[in-house]
Formats: sequence, structure tokens, C-alpha cells
Amino acid sequence: MEKIEHIGIAVKSLKDSNEMYTKLLGTAPYKTEAVASEGVNTSFFKMGASKIELLEATQDDSPIAKFLEKRGEGVHHIAYAVDDIRSEMKRLKDEGFHLLNEEPKKGADNKWVAFLHPKSTGGVLIELCQDID
Amino acid sequence: MEKIEHIGIAVKSLKDSNEMYTKLLGTAPYKTEAVASEGVNTSFFKMGASKIELLEATQDDSPIAKFLEKRGEGVHHIAYAVDDIRSEMKRLKDEGFHLLNEEPKKGADNKWVAFLHPKSTGGVLIELCQDID
Repeated sequence: MEKIEHIGIAVKSLKDSNEMYTKLLGTAPYKTEAVASEGVNTSFFKMGASKIELLEATQDDSPIAKFLEKRGEGVHHIAYAVDDIRSEMKRLKDEGFHLLNEEPKKGADNKWVAFLHPKSTGGVLIELCQDID
Repeated sequence: MEKIEHIGIAVKSLKDSNEMYTKLLGTAPYKTEAVASEGVNTSFFKMGASKIELLEATQDDSPIAKFLEKRGEGVHHIAYAVDDIRSEMKRLKDEGFHLLNEEPKKGADNKWVAFLHPKSTGGVLIELCQDID
């Protein structure tokens, strides 16, 4: 793991939360992106070498919609930047962590991503991110 | 706000979670610190320009004990580094955020800290941190 790539935060309304986060962080989102495969609209704020990602559900059965229903708004996941996602996935699997996907998949912001189940990481959904060249 | 200073994660056992996080992040905690005023033991892991802070309750009535009882283990707060905590507190108060302390208080890791109530920040407890010179 190289650094905190971003913190993913589930929100009810991307529009309202973009306004609130612009006030909170003192900076506007530098981009928004829809990820149809995950049923989300996202926005990104730069914060030092890391980012804050806001996630709004676009479908009632998306993971973010289920999270909001169960927990309400709040931190959804922590993403760590890795140089080689396949070797990190193997290393973590060998250490006993539970991977939610066996192969890297394409995520927001031009990344290969993989997730670790919160049951194996003390209640925190963990994302690994590698830049797609 | 300058950067993500740290992410605070509530854990049941600092010993067990230090072991798990050492495997997860591939690095050991660089320090541990008891903060008697908050009723917590903490450990810190470097992660790029940010840190992961694990928090274990030392008293049944501490905020971390209450959080664990209500939510279980997971992300407790996000801390942002600021240059001038008093001016950021004033700015955020003027923007309508709800401060949990009116004056900066001494936190872990040699910082002045202040908290924003999660009701005004979309369900995320926010900490502001300024290095004590």
C-alpha cells in the first residue's frame, strides 16, 4: 500500500453534498463521473495527495442504495493506492483477507480496483486501486 | 483544509487490530499513545502523507466505547490538517457547520484539535488538526 488514494462517502444527494463539501474543504469538485456498472454517480475533491469521493446511488438495488438504507450517509470505503494490484491481491489473500472480487475490475477515475470484505478488515470496506496506464 | 491528516478507526482490541493492520498495510504502527482525557489508547500507521489511527476504548463511557456499542468497529472520524485551526473553526462556523468544541483542545499526536458534528457534515465526524509548535 502506497498511500490513501481516496475516501469514499455515501451521500443521498450528490448536488447537496457537493455544495456542503465545497464549503467544508474550501475547494470545488474537480470532476464528476457516472459508473453505470456500480449504479452510482460520483464526484471527486482533491485533498493533498488524496481525494474525497462522494457516491450517490442511481439505482435502488445498487450497493450504495443498500448502504444508505442500512447505515445512512457516511464513510463507505477507504481506498489505498497500490503499484501492482494483482500481487497485492495475492499477498492479502495469502494473509487471510477475504477478497470480494478475484480479478481486478474497472472502477471510477481510470483505475483497476479490488475490494476486501469488511468482515476481514475490522468493519471497513477496503478498496485497492491501481492506475490504468 | 490542507490534506487528510488521518483516518480514525474504532477497534475493539488495539492488540488484535495492530496485527491485522500491519498485515493489511504492510507496515507496523510507528507509535502508540494513550489519551486519558478521551478514554482511548491509539496507534498510528504512516500511509503516504497521511496516517491511520486505531482507537481502543479504555473506559466504558468514552466516546469510542459508545460508538462501538452502537455501530461496531469501523471508521470513526476523518481528520483534516489545517494551518490555523482558529480561523478554520470561525470560517466553518460562519458557513453553518456545528462545532463540537468552541475552543481548540489538545489531541493525540501533539495536535490542537476541534470536531464538527456529523449532523452538519453528512454523517461523518470531522476533526480539524493543527500541529502544536
